[in-house]
Amino acid sequence: MTYCVGMMLDKGLVFMSDTRTNAGVDNISTFRKLVSWEEPGERVMTLMSAGNLATTQSVVSILDERTKAAGEREPSILAAPSMYQAARMVAETLREVIEEHADCGQRADSTFNATLILGGQIKGSSPRLFLIYPEGNFIEAGPDSPFFQIGETKYGRPILVRAYDPAMSFEDALKLLVVSFDSTVKANLSVGAPFDIQLIETDALRLGRRHRIEADDPYYLTISQNWGEALKQALDSLPPFTW
Amino acid sequence: MTYCVGMMLDKGLVFMSDTRTNAGVDNISTFRKLVSWEEPGERVMTLMSAGNLATTQSVVSILDERTKAAGEREPSILAAPSMYQAARMVAETLREVIEEHADCGQRADSTFNATLILGGQIKGSSPRLFLIYPEGNFIEAGPDSPFFQIGETKYGRPILVRAYDPAMSFEDALKLLVVSFDSTVKANLSVGAPFDIQLIETDALRLGRRHRIEADDPYYLTISQNWGEALKQALDSLPPFTW
Repeated sequence: MTYCVGMMLDKGLVFMSDTRTNAGVDNISTFRKLVSWEEPGERVMTLMSAGNLATTQSVVSILDERTKAAGEREPSILAAPSMYQAARMVAETLREVIEEHADCGQRADSTFNATLILGGQIKGSSPRLFLIYPEGNFIEAGPDSPFFQIGETKYGRPILVRAYDPAMSFEDALKLLVVSFDSTVKANLSVGAPFDIQLIETDALRLGRRHRIEADDPYYLTISQNWGEALKQALDSLPPFTW
Repeated sequence: MTYCVGMMLDKGLVFMSDTRTNAGVDNISTFRKLVSWEEPGERVMTLMSAGNLATTQSVVSILDERTKAAGEREPSILAAPSMYQAARMVAETLREVIEEHADCGQRADSTFNATLILGGQIKGSSPRLFLIYPEGNFIEAGPDSPFFQIGETKYGRPILVRAYDPAMSFEDALKLLVVSFDSTVKANLSVGAPFDIQLIETDALRLGRRHRIEADDPYYLTISQNWGEALKQALDSLPPFTW
């Protein structure tokens, strides 16, 4: 499993992903699921992935190769005229990779599916955030649905729904995300630290801060310990049940 | 979907279930999923169900008929010598009902599976709580896993994990459950009010308080509105994220 969240704020985009991959509970590894591209002053993009690791790594490799040999291998997301076109390219690549392995070669019990979150900004337009399905279609975040989750989405969702505010600072958003990730990690062994963070500030047109939270990060441990206590106090502050 | 929680406290057992059933989002009904039996001074039991409604109603009807024609139709859970034997009878009945419809008659796209929570007390032993699987086997709650959830379990789990305390009062437990149910209802349309509540006090050997929380219940609405605010304050009380 996996847990990734992409979030739109007034200040820009926030991305956070775990790094655990597993093939059964007896085969656990750490892989980076968050990758970014930039052309400073021109465009900036971040992609996160959940699902079959072979599929998502293949998608990232194809996209990455095309950006490095610009002019030779088209279409490159660094040449896309808009974030919408970039999302289409990523979605098309994802669909091709899945199709390629779907009905040939050896069969696997699980499918080779993957789901992606793509966000970024291209000069001249606003930051945009997309959720891309394995079928190759995608949806875009807006004021009504300002964040996307992929992977193990349920445990960490209630706190996001309740506490998200588009006006919040990057630091407040990251605190909220750490709580959401901690709730998920506590419930699902297949989601785990370290967590990768990437910011894309609105109109900066270059990659913002990037950070990795390790499992023994003092801030993460503090939040993890104090959140239980804070929740109990929140519960105490509610009126008692009466018959 | 469904959401039911059975919880062991020092004071006794608490059961709470929603009442929504659905066959697609365009076919929603309200059905009671919580049923109780008692022989005052002798034994008391409560059963909650998640899964195929035809299956769970059939299981309850079979168990219920047997209790009403005692001596004629065996085995009756009201004659079981222990809660363990009662759980075996319920599990056996569940397995039989599922098997009966599994490979004959018309086929349905979904399976006829169901999962049950059974709890209660028989004179001379402690209250016990079981989770019964469609395969007919079951597990028992203990100090390490003092509550069971069935149906849509994920959204409402983090708050239970963090705030559960075996020493809490019935009223505090119900407040906690209302919060857990509210988080679930907010995220999954197929879980909905009214909610049924049943208490079984330790050593009372008769059914405890029983209550139904309607969708417009003032307490439920208060909790639902205030919990968001309480969560934001809990988040504010945590130390800020720093780079």
